[in-house]
Amino acid sequence: MEVELKRMLTDLQNLKTSLSDPSHQASIDQIRLCVENLTSLAMAGPTRRTKVKDMSAEVVDSNPYSRLMALQRMGIVDNYERIREFSVAIVGIGGVGSVAAEMLTRCGIGRLLLYDYDTVELANMNRLFFRPEQVGMTKTDAAVQTLSEINPDVVLESFTLNITTVQGFETFIASLKNKSFRQEKEGTGVDLVLSCVDNYEARMVVNQACNELNQTWMESGVSEDAVSGHIQLLIPGETACFACAPPLVVASGVDERTLKRDGVCAASLPTTMGVVAGLLVQNTLKFLLKFGNVSPYLGYNALKDFFPTMAMKPNPQCSNGACLERQKEYMLIKPARDAAAKAKMEEELSTIEIPIHADNEWNISVVDDCDANIVNTQSSDALPEGLVHELPNADVYEQQQPTTEESIENVDDLEDLKRKLEALNAH
Amino acid sequence: MEVELKRMLTDLQNLKTSLSDPSHQASIDQIRLCVENLTSLAMAGPTRRTKVKDMSAEVVDSNPYSRLMALQRMGIVDNYERIREFSVAIVGIGGVGSVAAEMLTRCGIGRLLLYDYDTVELANMNRLFFRPEQVGMTKTDAAVQTLSEINPDVVLESFTLNITTVQGFETFIASLKNKSFRQEKEGTGVDLVLSCVDNYEARMVVNQACNELNQTWMESGVSEDAVSGHIQLLIPGETACFACAPPLVVASGVDERTLKRDGVCAASLPTTMGVVAGLLVQNTLKFLLKFGNVSPYLGYNALKDFFPTMAMKPNPQCSNGACLERQKEYMLIKPARDAAAKAKMEEELSTIEIPIHADNEWNISVVDDCDANIVNTQSSDALPEGLVHELPNADVYEQQQPTTEESIENVDDLEDLKRKLEALNAH
Repeated sequence: MEVELKRMLTDLQNLKTSLSDPSHQASIDQIRLCVENLTSLAMAGPTRRTKVKDMSAEVVDSNPYSRLMALQRMGIVDNYERIREFSVAIVGIGGVGSVAAEMLTRCGIGRLLLYDYDTVELANMNRLFFRPEQVGMTKTDAAVQTLSEINPDVVLESFTLNITTVQGFETFIASLKNKSFRQEKEGTGVDLVLSCVDNYEARMVVNQACNELNQTWMESGVSEDAVSGHIQLLIPGETACFACAPPLVVASGVDERTLKRDGVCAASLPTTMGVVAGLLVQNTLKFLLKFGNVSPYLGYNALKDFFPTMAMKPNPQCSNGACLERQKEYMLIKPARDAAAKAKMEEELSTIEIPIHADNEWNISVVDDCDANIVNTQSSDALPEGLVHELPNADVYEQQQPTTEESIENVDDLEDLKRKLEALNAH
Repeated sequence: MEVELKRMLTDLQNLKTSLSDPSHQASIDQIRLCVENLTSLAMAGPTRRTKVKDMSAEVVDSNPYSRLMALQRMGIVDNYERIREFSVAIVGIGGVGSVAAEMLTRCGIGRLLLYDYDTVELANMNRLFFRPEQVGMTKTDAAVQTLSEINPDVVLESFTLNITTVQGFETFIASLKNKSFRQEKEGTGVDLVLSCVDNYEARMVVNQACNELNQTWMESGVSEDAVSGHIQLLIPGETACFACAPPLVVASGVDERTLKRDGVCAASLPTTMGVVAGLLVQNTLKFLLKFGNVSPYLGYNALKDFFPTMAMKPNPQCSNGACLERQKEYMLIKPARDAAAKAKMEEELSTIEIPIHADNEWNISVVDDCDANIVNTQSSDALPEGLVHELPNADVYEQQQPTTEESIENVDDLEDLKRKLEALNAH
């Protein structure tokens, strides 16, 4: 539109110089004024808020961070503004990932890395975030458009790629390693990876990358029948990785890929996905800003409003080589960590004023005896009520899969696997 | 913009008729063509999706309802399309109400009634839904703008008013009574009222209206420290009303109004509000479409990921007169209801094929013996772990309050009340 208006101004100027009658020239000037007004209107666009240098706690209507900085005065968070130092990678910008990205953006996260290869469709409109006018755009482009309008303070980096391809995986790993934003020497360039993908292969690829990079991540999922979901914290070497034990799902989850055929699609609800995204980002905030207890695993059964929780130790026989390496490393540093944690706890107990929110660097959560839902187990016989394994043990599954790259094609093998799974479940 | 462009066309036409040189007239025509192009550009606006006549289950990218209609094939919902017959009123379009409205809009609810008197501020940007470019608009106008773009099939009615004023209350009652959309003879013009307000007075006003109209409603709330929330189902005469017992909050909720002074504001998080909105609308869908169990009360403790639940019977000594009338009515119809429910259950048990999702007209939820969190009590001594009363008993509270209209001014009384509450909590 700006181009057309500029051309009109030139045309009007040319016409004016060729006219001799002053009344005609005055008419031209009047039209030109109109064009100039339109130009300034078109240039203004929608009102955007400007970037802010520091997060202020001032209670004025114009402060986008007042309600977040209030978390400090309430004694929930020690230093909220630290959130600007953190980088979070979100893999999969669908029903859960897009809402998680919006929540972190509105919380003023430092930097977001977004990964997806899909485009926005009208069929996605039953979940939050994307708008009908974005249909046809890549999900990454549409997300960057919306998120940058909501909060220009967040550094957004988007990657339109499929992490399950060789090239995609390499770019994914390289982007996680990029330390341009992060000051700390140790670790990767991101503080946390959130997996919001909708299939098993992509989860295994995130697991592989995070095990290789020793990167803490959180996994999330929603069942194909739309009425259950879960989140899970994975710390390489310290907790079970995604290959250590068959992934857990809430209630009677069906194997998600068996449903993805012609004319059949998964059900989804904005409610279930919104709840799972909310629980995921809430635990992300607790992890980054060190408050409350980060849940190792939290399920959501929407039909009964039941929320099973549990913790899983790594499997010493895990099929993932990188996981075994991380387990060895963790066993070496564990005694020193435990001693430091014990010393710190004793020091805190010795002071008269016990802090309300003790620093919890390793996110150790105390298992409450009163809460029967929390168990610490890796035995499939002792799963808490309401939880079942989504698939058989990972090494059994791996035997069925020639390579990670090709596994999407093996629908026949999956059918066979599903029959075995059903036979197992029948017991 | 359209106005300016139209005026320019007139000006150009006038100038053209006053000019004699054909080359000058050709220049005018060229400029006019530009203006016409700009007009069609301005008229087009953003791409909107068109209304659809019926909800289709067809699995194509262009179908906005395919993932919702899939709930039927999955055996979750008997008839999803019934959602288009329902009207839901949402009181308070803030951090919870706006997200609840968006979820119901994306689910294709028939009609939404929205109530709020506030305007959008930058300070609201830490919660989902509103965008910086909407700052200064009323929340109702901004909500209608966004929701109508997302789903033009939903009938939206907005009321920019404060329900705690005399005039506001009258309009509120009248709007709930309006039966133009609803076919059924019994009841009001809405199927459910969702209370998403942020203060005690407004909740008591919703309670009064719903008791008077015998209207089932759901209450929701988020604590001032942003890390806990709850939802509650209230069926006049059948469950406790908001005045029957002191309202329950999760964990250590503070009296919300004591914090609302100059330079002090409540903390809020998009995560907590998103989770509460998700749980609220999930239970709304279960209530309307008759699947799963509707929770009578569900709390959310974000620090521990703990979700206490309970049920409360009405108080025969309730201070609310309309509540007592509804209780009498319910006692009269209860024997017939119980007999009908028993007969239906026996009939279902006698058939060989037991339906997966039995019709649950009265939303009776079976209390599971295994779940220690669910108790059925109205004694404050037997609250489930993690739940406390927000305020003392309603009739104690009422004695402190001269009238509902004037109570906002009585800050000194509240201070006194808070001291009493703290003394009670100290025991």
